[in-house]
Amino acid sequence: MTALKNDRFLRALRREPVDCTPVWLMRQAGRYLPEYRATRKEAGSFLGMAKNPEIACEVTLQPLRRYDLDAAILFSDILTVPDAMGLGLYFVEGEGPKFERTIRSAADAAKLGVPDMETELRYVMDAVRVIRRELDGKVPLIGFSGSPWTLACYMVEGGGSKDFARIKAMALNEPAALHRLLSVNTDAVIAYLAAQRAAGAQALQVFDTWGGVLSPAMYREFSLPYLQRIAHELDRGEGAERTPLILFGKGTAAYLEDLAATGAEGVGVDWLVELGDAARRTGGKVALQGNLDPATLYGSPEAIRAEVKRTLDSYRDGNGGSREGHVFNLGHGMSPDMDPDHVAVLVDAVHTFSRR
Amino acid sequence: MTALKNDRFLRALRREPVDCTPVWLMRQAGRYLPEYRATRKEAGSFLGMAKNPEIACEVTLQPLRRYDLDAAILFSDILTVPDAMGLGLYFVEGEGPKFERTIRSAADAAKLGVPDMETELRYVMDAVRVIRRELDGKVPLIGFSGSPWTLACYMVEGGGSKDFARIKAMALNEPAALHRLLSVNTDAVIAYLAAQRAAGAQALQVFDTWGGVLSPAMYREFSLPYLQRIAHELDRGEGAERTPLILFGKGTAAYLEDLAATGAEGVGVDWLVELGDAARRTGGKVALQGNLDPATLYGSPEAIRAEVKRTLDSYRDGNGGSREGHVFNLGHGMSPDMDPDHVAVLVDAVHTFSRR
Repeated sequence: MTALKNDRFLRALRREPVDCTPVWLMRQAGRYLPEYRATRKEAGSFLGMAKNPEIACEVTLQPLRRYDLDAAILFSDILTVPDAMGLGLYFVEGEGPKFERTIRSAADAAKLGVPDMETELRYVMDAVRVIRRELDGKVPLIGFSGSPWTLACYMVEGGGSKDFARIKAMALNEPAALHRLLSVNTDAVIAYLAAQRAAGAQALQVFDTWGGVLSPAMYREFSLPYLQRIAHELDRGEGAERTPLILFGKGTAAYLEDLAATGAEGVGVDWLVELGDAARRTGGKVALQGNLDPATLYGSPEAIRAEVKRTLDSYRDGNGGSREGHVFNLGHGMSPDMDPDHVAVLVDAVHTFSRR
Repeated sequence: MTALKNDRFLRALRREPVDCTPVWLMRQAGRYLPEYRATRKEAGSFLGMAKNPEIACEVTLQPLRRYDLDAAILFSDILTVPDAMGLGLYFVEGEGPKFERTIRSAADAAKLGVPDMETELRYVMDAVRVIRRELDGKVPLIGFSGSPWTLACYMVEGGGSKDFARIKAMALNEPAALHRLLSVNTDAVIAYLAAQRAAGAQALQVFDTWGGVLSPAMYREFSLPYLQRIAHELDRGEGAERTPLILFGKGTAAYLEDLAATGAEGVGVDWLVELGDAARRTGGKVALQGNLDPATLYGSPEAIRAEVKRTLDSYRDGNGGSREGHVFNLGHGMSPDMDPDHVAVLVDAVHTFSRR
């Protein structure tokens, strides 16, 4: 493999000095880019793109051709694992992901097993290999998965939900069944992330998108322990060769101390917490990734620059005056109606304002 | 007026001793009740019901006939004020509230004025008067409004939103225009709550439903100061005759200390914070209202009882061993698919487990 030409992102995750703060954006490969929409039109569907390694590679690289981003993220979905378990992932335009089959009982959960990574999820590993080859060391490649709890939400509800009535009823009435489901999900996520690492992913992120819908007691029973298990059990090497793990949660800022104590190298932070406070609370134990409100991209270039500067300075102030250990990102994913020119403003502002 | 037969709710808001913890439920008058659905079918529409004082009274009283609730809440909508400002509130089945006209600029905001309470919002005041008469002192009646920020969200977006792109763009690009809008909203909310009090409301609640979508910096600029102004400027009498004000926010647990310091008598707490922690953090400065996850009502009666007990005990443990100053409620409103029998289990469990 070619040596990495830009290792800012990996250095920041190790809390080492960098020339300026690295930046990438959740959902940076997406519908806001005309070239993405053109590729998608040709490919037909989101899943068709994700399951074709050459197309997945093409859309992964698209934002890197436009912007000076410091990391690439595999073009895929957080729900590939339950799809490979046989649940039948599909997408309805404007409604998000759905599953043909759902998990509603202990018996349903008992039938699930860890998919074989190099057969049932081979298309993901092939995409990782093709992207690594095409990146040619330009920036590191991030692999990812949904968290055990977030996968379970979709597996039980059968799709997105407003109130998560079914999975919360399961948590209340049949906690053992839900723990069985979360346990197999955790085994599968660990195997999946390990396989992505073996295929060439240089950092790994877990998206706990729905961790924030839980009461603290339920979060501590049904989400956090499984994130802890991933951080403990996922072999990611040692020293400078260690593949960093980032735990991202939406609406889970109340648990930053717990997430920082898992052993993960990085914690992704949404925009609902002041980043300086997050840095103070985690006290240098982990790198922090975040946390501009994505809606900032609807603001003017001047407003974007001001908010980027505020976020960078907030981190520095909470981190004892140092910018080390910060990966700049949004607090959540980008949206299709965002202006590509505003993304350029954001990326340039991060590098300019953080230059050491 | 008849003397109040059950004053648990008002005593709890004054943090005085009570025989057991009072309970009411956000959206307790609603579609989960067959009698509500029957009334609505006859009346035709939600707004038709809210704008007819006799029908509003009927649906306000329906849950009190079934359950041993300790407060009634006016049947109305959080968006009556902007409707009376001329924006044209309407409802699309399954899509929530919408406005025919929206506010997009400083010029739009400049045209808005405080509505006249006894003409343009007379139907609300009439409903309060009719309900007080029909309640005949059974339990206190709560009046309410949306918060200035939450009203502004609907006024700018024209309805619900996933990302609040328009109002956040306004906050970034034209903050003075947004402050002008929030300022007139605040004047109107204060006049509206004062008029409800004059008509007979015995407690007042402000719903900051969308406070939790803001970054801390934006919350402190665009929501909190206007809640503070309401708490300071709303005349609500003195001593035992004082009409308590409750500030409820969804996703705003990070600001509990600030909300407790506004001078409001009560703070409503969603289920995303441990109630004992909320009690510790607010240190007896205010009464707390909450905070069972509404989805608990999808659980079995046994699970509901266990969660009610856990919530009551959590409050007591965080409140120095005392149950005083707690109004039991859900952390958010009820949903149409909830089982009326489960509500009975919840209400009885609150009274039973908290009996002094």
